[in-house]
Amino acid sequence: MSPAKASAAAKIFKSAEKAASLSDGEFRKLKDRLRVELIDLQQKIRNRGQFPVIIVLAGVKGAGVIDTLNVINTWMDPRWVETHAFDAPSDEESERPPFWRYWRSLPAAGAMGLYLEGWYGELLGLDPKRPVGRGDDRLRHIAAFEQTLADDGALILKFWLHLSERHHRTCQETDDEDPVFGIRPADHAWRPQPPYSVYVKTAANVIASTNTDRAPWHIVGGHDANRRRFEILDLLRKSFAAHLKRMARAPKNGRAAAARRAPAHDVLSTVDLSRTMSDKDYARAFHVEQNRLYKAQRAVREAGLSSVIAFEGWDAAGKGGAIRRLAYGLSAYNYKVVPIAAPNDEERKHHYLWRFWRALDRAGHITIFDRSWYGRVLVERVDNLIPRSAWQRAYDEINAFEEEMTASGIVLLKFWLHIDKDEQLRRFKDRRKDPARRWKLTGDDFHNRKNWNAYVAAVNDMVKRTSSESAPWRLVPANSKKFARITVMETVADALERALAARQNR
Amino acid sequence: MSPAKASAAAKIFKSAEKAASLSDGEFRKLKDRLRVELIDLQQKIRNRGQFPVIIVLAGVKGAGVIDTLNVINTWMDPRWVETHAFDAPSDEESERPPFWRYWRSLPAAGAMGLYLEGWYGELLGLDPKRPVGRGDDRLRHIAAFEQTLADDGALILKFWLHLSERHHRTCQETDDEDPVFGIRPADHAWRPQPPYSVYVKTAANVIASTNTDRAPWHIVGGHDANRRRFEILDLLRKSFAAHLKRMARAPKNGRAAAARRAPAHDVLSTVDLSRTMSDKDYARAFHVEQNRLYKAQRAVREAGLSSVIAFEGWDAAGKGGAIRRLAYGLSAYNYKVVPIAAPNDEERKHHYLWRFWRALDRAGHITIFDRSWYGRVLVERVDNLIPRSAWQRAYDEINAFEEEMTASGIVLLKFWLHIDKDEQLRRFKDRRKDPARRWKLTGDDFHNRKNWNAYVAAVNDMVKRTSSESAPWRLVPANSKKFARITVMETVADALERALAARQNR
Repeated sequence: MSPAKASAAAKIFKSAEKAASLSDGEFRKLKDRLRVELIDLQQKIRNRGQFPVIIVLAGVKGAGVIDTLNVINTWMDPRWVETHAFDAPSDEESERPPFWRYWRSLPAAGAMGLYLEGWYGELLGLDPKRPVGRGDDRLRHIAAFEQTLADDGALILKFWLHLSERHHRTCQETDDEDPVFGIRPADHAWRPQPPYSVYVKTAANVIASTNTDRAPWHIVGGHDANRRRFEILDLLRKSFAAHLKRMARAPKNGRAAAARRAPAHDVLSTVDLSRTMSDKDYARAFHVEQNRLYKAQRAVREAGLSSVIAFEGWDAAGKGGAIRRLAYGLSAYNYKVVPIAAPNDEERKHHYLWRFWRALDRAGHITIFDRSWYGRVLVERVDNLIPRSAWQRAYDEINAFEEEMTASGIVLLKFWLHIDKDEQLRRFKDRRKDPARRWKLTGDDFHNRKNWNAYVAAVNDMVKRTSSESAPWRLVPANSKKFARITVMETVADALERALAARQNR
Repeated sequence: MSPAKASAAAKIFKSAEKAASLSDGEFRKLKDRLRVELIDLQQKIRNRGQFPVIIVLAGVKGAGVIDTLNVINTWMDPRWVETHAFDAPSDEESERPPFWRYWRSLPAAGAMGLYLEGWYGELLGLDPKRPVGRGDDRLRHIAAFEQTLADDGALILKFWLHLSERHHRTCQETDDEDPVFGIRPADHAWRPQPPYSVYVKTAANVIASTNTDRAPWHIVGGHDANRRRFEILDLLRKSFAAHLKRMARAPKNGRAAAARRAPAHDVLSTVDLSRTMSDKDYARAFHVEQNRLYKAQRAVREAGLSSVIAFEGWDAAGKGGAIRRLAYGLSAYNYKVVPIAAPNDEERKHHYLWRFWRALDRAGHITIFDRSWYGRVLVERVDNLIPRSAWQRAYDEINAFEEEMTASGIVLLKFWLHIDKDEQLRRFKDRRKDPARRWKLTGDDFHNRKNWNAYVAAVNDMVKRTSSESAPWRLVPANSKKFARITVMETVADALERALAARQNR
């Protein structure tokens, strides 16, 4: 955060303190039309079901934060408004990455979420002598969170309700009903705040550092209730209308075709598919790895160390078999397998990462994804299910998601099971012959096979853009099922043992 | 629980201790066919997507409970198997009725849930000198839970894995792999158990008290791993096949038409629809009730007292308006409104009560349902969306659900907003004229109006069969919107104040 920006924010605070007041008479003249328009826009947003509205409310005690919440709930249809306030994390929340609780609270497309301080609670409570810095992880997480939601179409509005120190001091709770709204201006802060000067200085810092085009802060003077309410509701009205218009123009599906040719330098071509394993070596290695996994999973459970293992790969590459062999070594007590298919209708109303956030388990658990969030940059890209811009920005979104996992201590492993085209055909034929496995073969398999080269391009981009030090891609040669299974078991055992050792050394 | 039944259970324990063993050779001969059949049945269950499978596993340490879990996960496709073990409730769980955590863990139709001790953990840990008695609330809750799931089509199987005291003493954890399965028989109990004699005596009591046709206990001797595994897997095979057959014959939709004539004694006819309220009285009462609500909701938040308010009523009876006026008196900080429409596809894969369980909020919150679980005995009955038997048993299911809420301290209020047919027509016409409210009017409204008499019969049955002392129906005269709104506000304020006073007096 640059001091210049923060002082600019402080200047806006000052001017907000001086906003002219609005008389009851003037407000009465404006209000009926405003309200009809707001309700109408809310219905349009609901019926369109295209995007959620996310509103963050924060401000000085006495400036009307709770009142704004109540006014929005009262003026609009409260059935499509959800209010969220976050106190100290519950135990279920504190066992997951910090943003898990915000993700799980997100409104579906068509609905509206009101957030008291939202994800700013911790930052706003900071000591202003140690302000958030430019490279601060928390700022990066907030920026990534808001950007990924905005990119997905969400309308994000953030309000800071301000008062001069004098007004703040003299404001009092009152039992008088407001003459126009008929509701009480309920001005208490919803939780204790630091002293005025400290709080306002911190807020100026935070606002300057998190004010973006897609998720802007609006500073509103809070001393005059009529003015404040009109200003906020009118801003909602304008924003709703503008966003509906903008989203009506948004592209619905793919415009640019995905590459049909394999890239010049193909990372998959570096995978040594000749790797294989004798029955005897397999039996021995299986026993060894099973033992290691068995011990490691008891230890991670006791240590509360969570892990997430994502499997991707060609159709018939042996994902299911590898997962089952991994399961042989684990006790079902603390792992779960999450199979990923096309999203259901609840999931479709949310950001594509929402269902993966939702699946993250409590401390000490192993969550295995059979296909994963990488569908975004694989099938959704190759089959043109989403616009080019959507899968292109997905690399950053996925990196941010994974970084939040690993930063919170989750062991993250990503496998691409690689086979060649001939091997795939052999396996399809085998499946057709085997009555116990015929169900595995679907029309999709042949469809995907036709897009082999497009997938190669997609896998290359994926590996290049989402391999990080804490979560590298593991390309597993899988023409030999035995070799692939042992590689997977060994990699998981290695990673868990390493993480356990690191934790003990802390 | 009768002593005779418990001793019968103890006898079955004894005979299980003597089960003959199965040699590796014999088992090998049986296993391949068994496994192919099991996988095939699992696929059928998954593709049919008609019912969930719920398997409870409990038993003496050393008898192979964890091993059974692992064998099922290993032999079948673990992607459609979910394992659940419940330790001490998390804080989010302990703030809701005790069965909330079981409801939220239930597998969707087509999937399989494995439960370590399931909802029996607490009972199995009891002192056998104070055994569960016939009228025990916990037994009633378990019985109601299992019955409602079974009635909804779920296949429920409960296993008690038994060992003689001698076997229990000599059993040891081993690192040796099983020669047939290739997995370790992992025999540790997943959590500490009372001494053998105590545990077994308690188990005999519990099993005798909870053994029902729809959710039977199977006692399996655990000393011989081959025999035990074969017995359990073969029982799964038979049960899967039988249940698939049974469910294929299950009726899909309504067979008996709902009553088209109003009942002889119509409880709705006792509602005095002439009740009305002057503008002046309304303004005064509104102010008074708003103040009461405002104070009460702060107090319930601090006391952690939860409440659930369900609104039902004729179309255009003013549910939305009443909810909005109620909201005027509340701070949006700790209430939420849950609008109930047709279930989404995730909800459709679950018991109809699942989504209402899921919506229950944490301690201190007010949850307002705009339409509710009563849709089961109203629209679903009247429109023949479900078989007659389904809505007929729903009264008991709903009573059990509501009793679990009130028993856990939730304040539960149920409103039926009543208007007459003429008033409804007037309101439909008004809506059509008003551009701001035209969206409220749908084809459903006129469809429902045609079924007026059938609804009267359904409402009468509903009121008669689901009014209890702790959760009576409140029939609100709503021809006058003002009168109805004040009645609702007053009733809520009364109930919250009463509950707060009762809590303070404890």
